[in-house]
Amino acid sequence: MGSTFGELFRISTWGESHGKGVGVVVDGCPANLAISEEDIQYELDRRRPGQSDITTPRKEADSVEILSGVFDGKTTGTPISMMVRNKDHNSKAYDHLKDVYRPSHADYVYDQKYGHRDYRGGGRSSARETIGRVAAGAIAKAYLKQVGNIEILACVKQIHTIEASFDVTDLTLSSIEANDVRCPDEATAQIMIEAIKQARKDGDSLGGIVTCVAKHVPAGLGEPVFDKIKADLAKAMLSLPATMGFEIGSGFSSVSMTGAEHNDAILISDDQTVHTRTNYSGGTQGGITNGELIYFNTVFKPTATIFKTQDTISTDQKATTLAAKGRHDPCVVPRAIPIVESMCAIVIMDHWLRQQARYPQWNQGSISANKSSL
Amino acid sequence: MGSTFGELFRISTWGESHGKGVGVVVDGCPANLAISEEDIQYELDRRRPGQSDITTPRKEADSVEILSGVFDGKTTGTPISMMVRNKDHNSKAYDHLKDVYRPSHADYVYDQKYGHRDYRGGGRSSARETIGRVAAGAIAKAYLKQVGNIEILACVKQIHTIEASFDVTDLTLSSIEANDVRCPDEATAQIMIEAIKQARKDGDSLGGIVTCVAKHVPAGLGEPVFDKIKADLAKAMLSLPATMGFEIGSGFSSVSMTGAEHNDAILISDDQTVHTRTNYSGGTQGGITNGELIYFNTVFKPTATIFKTQDTISTDQKATTLAAKGRHDPCVVPRAIPIVESMCAIVIMDHWLRQQARYPQWNQGSISANKSSL
Amino acid sequence: MGSTFGELFRISTWGESHGKGVGVVVDGCPANLAISEEDIQYELDRRRPGQSDITTPRKEADSVEILSGVFDGKTTGTPISMMVRNKDHNSKAYDHLKDVYRPSHADYVYDQKYGHRDYRGGGRSSARETIGRVAAGAIAKAYLKQVGNIEILACVKQIHTIEASFDVTDLTLSSIEANDVRCPDEATAQIMIEAIKQARKDGDSLGGIVTCVAKHVPAGLGEPVFDKIKADLAKAMLSLPATMGFEIGSGFSSVSMTGAEHNDAILISDDQTVHTRTNYSGGTQGGITNGELIYFNTVFKPTATIFKTQDTISTDQKATTLAAKGRHDPCVVPRAIPIVESMCAIVIMDHWLRQQARYPQWNQGSISANKSSL
Amino acid sequence: MGSTFGELFRISTWGESHGKGVGVVVDGCPANLAISEEDIQYELDRRRPGQSDITTPRKEADSVEILSGVFDGKTTGTPISMMVRNKDHNSKAYDHLKDVYRPSHADYVYDQKYGHRDYRGGGRSSARETIGRVAAGAIAKAYLKQVGNIEILACVKQIHTIEASFDVTDLTLSSIEANDVRCPDEATAQIMIEAIKQARKDGDSLGGIVTCVAKHVPAGLGEPVFDKIKADLAKAMLSLPATMGFEIGSGFSSVSMTGAEHNDAILISDDQTVHTRTNYSGGTQGGITNGELIYFNTVFKPTATIFKTQDTISTDQKATTLAAKGRHDPCVVPRAIPIVESMCAIVIMDHWLRQQARYPQWNQGSISANKSSL
Repeated sequence: MGSTFGELFRISTWGESHGKGVGVVVDGCPANLAISEEDIQYELDRRRPGQSDITTPRKEADSVEILSGVFDGKTTGTPISMMVRNKDHNSKAYDHLKDVYRPSHADYVYDQKYGHRDYRGGGRSSARETIGRVAAGAIAKAYLKQVGNIEILACVKQIHTIEASFDVTDLTLSSIEANDVRCPDEATAQIMIEAIKQARKDGDSLGGIVTCVAKHVPAGLGEPVFDKIKADLAKAMLSLPATMGFEIGSGFSSVSMTGAEHNDAILISDDQTVHTRTNYSGGTQGGITNGELIYFNTVFKPTATIFKTQDTISTDQKATTLAAKGRHDPCVVPRAIPIVESMCAIVIMDHWLRQQARYPQWNQGSISANKSSL
Repeated sequence: MGSTFGELFRISTWGESHGKGVGVVVDGCPANLAISEEDIQYELDRRRPGQSDITTPRKEADSVEILSGVFDGKTTGTPISMMVRNKDHNSKAYDHLKDVYRPSHADYVYDQKYGHRDYRGGGRSSARETIGRVAAGAIAKAYLKQVGNIEILACVKQIHTIEASFDVTDLTLSSIEANDVRCPDEATAQIMIEAIKQARKDGDSLGGIVTCVAKHVPAGLGEPVFDKIKADLAKAMLSLPATMGFEIGSGFSSVSMTGAEHNDAILISDDQTVHTRTNYSGGTQGGITNGELIYFNTVFKPTATIFKTQDTISTDQKATTLAAKGRHDPCVVPRAIPIVESMCAIVIMDHWLRQQARYPQWNQGSISANKSSL
Repeated sequence: MGSTFGELFRISTWGESHGKGVGVVVDGCPANLAISEEDIQYELDRRRPGQSDITTPRKEADSVEILSGVFDGKTTGTPISMMVRNKDHNSKAYDHLKDVYRPSHADYVYDQKYGHRDYRGGGRSSARETIGRVAAGAIAKAYLKQVGNIEILACVKQIHTIEASFDVTDLTLSSIEANDVRCPDEATAQIMIEAIKQARKDGDSLGGIVTCVAKHVPAGLGEPVFDKIKADLAKAMLSLPATMGFEIGSGFSSVSMTGAEHNDAILISDDQTVHTRTNYSGGTQGGITNGELIYFNTVFKPTATIFKTQDTISTDQKATTLAAKGRHDPCVVPRAIPIVESMCAIVIMDHWLRQQARYPQWNQGSISANKSSL
Repeated sequence: MGSTFGELFRISTWGESHGKGVGVVVDGCPANLAISEEDIQYELDRRRPGQSDITTPRKEADSVEILSGVFDGKTTGTPISMMVRNKDHNSKAYDHLKDVYRPSHADYVYDQKYGHRDYRGGGRSSARETIGRVAAGAIAKAYLKQVGNIEILACVKQIHTIEASFDVTDLTLSSIEANDVRCPDEATAQIMIEAIKQARKDGDSLGGIVTCVAKHVPAGLGEPVFDKIKADLAKAMLSLPATMGFEIGSGFSSVSMTGAEHNDAILISDDQTVHTRTNYSGGTQGGITNGELIYFNTVFKPTATIFKTQDTISTDQKATTLAAKGRHDPCVVPRAIPIVESMCAIVIMDHWLRQQARYPQWNQGSISANKSSL
């Protein structure tokens, strides 16, 4: 259970790391959206292993196949099923993990929960599961772009103790894709890359912080109470492997301000557009978008797979030690960028449909549209 | 929409700040749980206004009435409806807010979303909505206590820049309730109290960080992928008014460690109990509990209601200024403690039922129980 | 669990027959719909006991109170909570049912399921639960009337073996409300009334069939596969107490036709409106409305409460006998009319919102609206 | 939307008649259930075309592939993805349907709803979608068999006006599979087969009624109010293509009985087992199973595809005529048997898990198990 996300734009992922493949079923996408396997593949290529020399050297094409829901190049309104076949991995490479629990991995808890575990490459807990999310996210991005010119962009803000400097309002896809670590601060990016390479040499791993922004999101998205847009974004981010925290707008730094410092004064410009003077709220108030830039941070712990020897126990409850073998990412954060963007796009599209359900004239005018919407 | 939370232990809150009342319908609570209005009232009293001299002086008894689902002192398995009537407030006190948007409140976005707004005291966006959450949380706490001796405790970790020092493994209800600010570090608590009093004098407001722990949660709770227990806790916390961020375990500080430093080695003791050497994971791995203490932090921004004059706009889109009147909390964090605990209890109970659905022998033995569960 | 119905227009009922009251929380109703307690009360009066001399003589006003979600006479978009207090019944009247299971009632199965039972008047299994449905249905009716001039009407088609004759296309509210049994065939209605009176004298009970129609529902509502509009109507009807079956359009009689006889030929008139020559499909094809009249039948078994002596067992598993005491309806079908209408309205409104979510231009033009809807 | 069914045992189907394939993702199946592709294929073979000379002569192997969720022959507790590739059909065979709406098919309503339609073989509205249901149903059957020796069986009760005679308590798999029409009344079965062959010669089609039983279902399954087991069965059945009605137990015939005739007296036998004298209730009371045999009927209209010329309109709204070409079933009812069984199994398994969620000791003893379940 728990493999489905979203209310009206609903994605259900499936698949294990070393099973036959991984995939996703997207239900609720409106008909008539132009989409192709190339659109999906573009985003999958941003997350695939082996894309640069700071990721795992394991090459995997991760070619997507659209199995249903698209006809004559356009969505039909029915479920879009997409699949990526796993390549014929050497599953034997995982035989040494059959009888041992890797520290800070999900091995032990899966056995506690299910009493039965696909030990090959983490099985269902593998980050390969996120392929389905990225494929679904590509569709959400396309929809949001078309209906509202909404753009979702993420980048690396910090790797280990190396912090980048940039303005969230300035992010562009090209600035993010300019280097392998996907950090718009070019000078710092190079330091990050060196740190990741050093971590690999050390057999160690690094974590980081990802910043994500959503541009041009109109006011009015999100639901009061439980389905606040910040709540759904928090859930989306903490549902990603290796994440440890989330903050929106001023986040944890808000605590050191007073209300007078932190409140976002509301201004009206000569052309009658409404803006806030500051944007500590990160584009949402009361859980509902206010038309300002949405921005938030997600922290990823250092990857649990390391090549150093660690204390652990075997499945028959004996003390033992373990050191990883094979090829692994010393830092997954650069490859997490399209995943974070995808989950953000899915959340916003879901709320877009939820808003449209009750207020079809919404976003086709001003407040007055709603006033007359019934 | 969005007023329902939980899959199997499902709560639906309703009510506005100055409507006839606020309440909650709890569906999915097992039959035969002993519960009384007194049990609910105890928790509501911990969140009510006027409970101490650092909260709003507004006195409100917030007396709960159980309307259904309890018979002969025990739950019946059918929906538990609970209500707190609002007292006859002077709604006229809010007339000055009818035509103006309070900065960093939900006024503007509600009008953008709905085109119609109950402006009295924030309407649905008021923190009075959390009364229903606390009432439901009291039931979840009682259930968890009974089936697993699980205890959920929250406390204030930081107010503004004043940070407390305590060990999360040592929290007790009495240490939390020992002072008005609900901080177990008594010396620091007094400094916090002074800061809050000063903020009131200044007509300003303060935020803070709340730490919450769940003790004795067995391994195996939580679902892979989207419904990870950390994801549901993150959503629960970010669904609370004024929250800006969430972190579990090592949280944002994990980023400055390497994998070798951060991984929680697995140990087995002489009595065959399994533990991790460190608990940077905060009691969950792969989104599933591992039997260690669950602990997480939630940050609350400084309250948006301040008595200083602020720039804003009127509902007819003219620039204006606003300063709050009446009685308000300069810092809501101490009153947020039972709310945080309640949401944590609701999440854990929901996952408890979800686990029990498929593995009825779970928690009645060891791994082997699951192995033979079919 | 199971007290919630609907995806986007979602109702959650609560309450027991002899608890403090019964009610409903409606989440997902769009803002700005004009609604009042009088609108709700009108429908509740159509279902209340004691309304005529063929229903139970027990008088109960069933006065509704709107507790939230309506401000200045209009919905706010937030949950609408409504409650009817139960009068101070003589619960002692039910003491004789504490230790015995009434045949064909839910007493025995509640004990099997929950091990704990509110035996007073059936507790949660009482038809008083439907008060919440009717209150919610009044809102759905008002919405559908306003957005699409949709009208939902139900009437009695058969009582025991007495079958009425009428054309489903001719139903009007006044023809239904013209007599106490709510049958538009006036002559037959009188025979039904006599039969019901005779059943009361006999200490026996009668069942019946209710026909419901939905007028002016545009084409395009309903979802393929599981959430077909006929599937949701079937669930809605079979969720009512005492129902045993459902059929839409030609229903069970379709089986005696061949495809050539049963297919609804599609015609286009001079004014370019599309219609089918026959309407055996009952207004839906492939689970989606086609613009024709929706009509369906629901069968209600004879009421389980009778005054004749019946064989049964006690709660301590001994053979015993039982005969009902007190005041009961010999036939609930006439009072079921507003309940059937309400559930039908809720289903259609839910699908209306679902369709609008993805196709905001839908119903504002023709097919071409959808073609350009992105 | 609408392609997902079930709360705790949740199936999501995808795929179009002439797309790349059809499939299902099953989420919520407990771990450790032994299942193989052969188990699934057995049921798919019961529904595949070309299995006998009264079905369509179109041969299609419909070979299933399990893509995830099964490891070492047992379920892992994670989503089970299954797929059947569509063979390389001659899609050109459907070119003549591109611009015309088939009467009593979903063509017209899909265009009204979506403005875009996969016209090849009905696209998503094709009965090929039910392949995913049958694959999921095979898993539900295996689970129910293992945990409770529950058996689900369906058979043909009526074809056109030819009605079989059998006792629902006597059904066995072998009696159903004894002939091509799947009717346990052998003599009548032969008449049905002749009628179907004649309908094919006539270019016409026939409908029928399917009876389904569930044996050994213990008391206590189903939820009060909306998620009554009869309500979920009704939805499941009416979600099948071509269905027009549903009745449980005495169904529509209940209306001609009085309460005294219809009530099921409760008896206790010498060995302390509880039974009802009659079983007009069909195994459920108040929406909850009572331990008696569950039985219900579903009516299928005559297939809409016929070879006779029919009046219809073109997609550009001109009057035209149409006659089917190619190979089609003159009567789909015999192939519907495994589909009906599958949906019944899915409903019961879903409720089994829901009951177990709150009452883990349920079904491991008697009422007293629940009484002490907390």
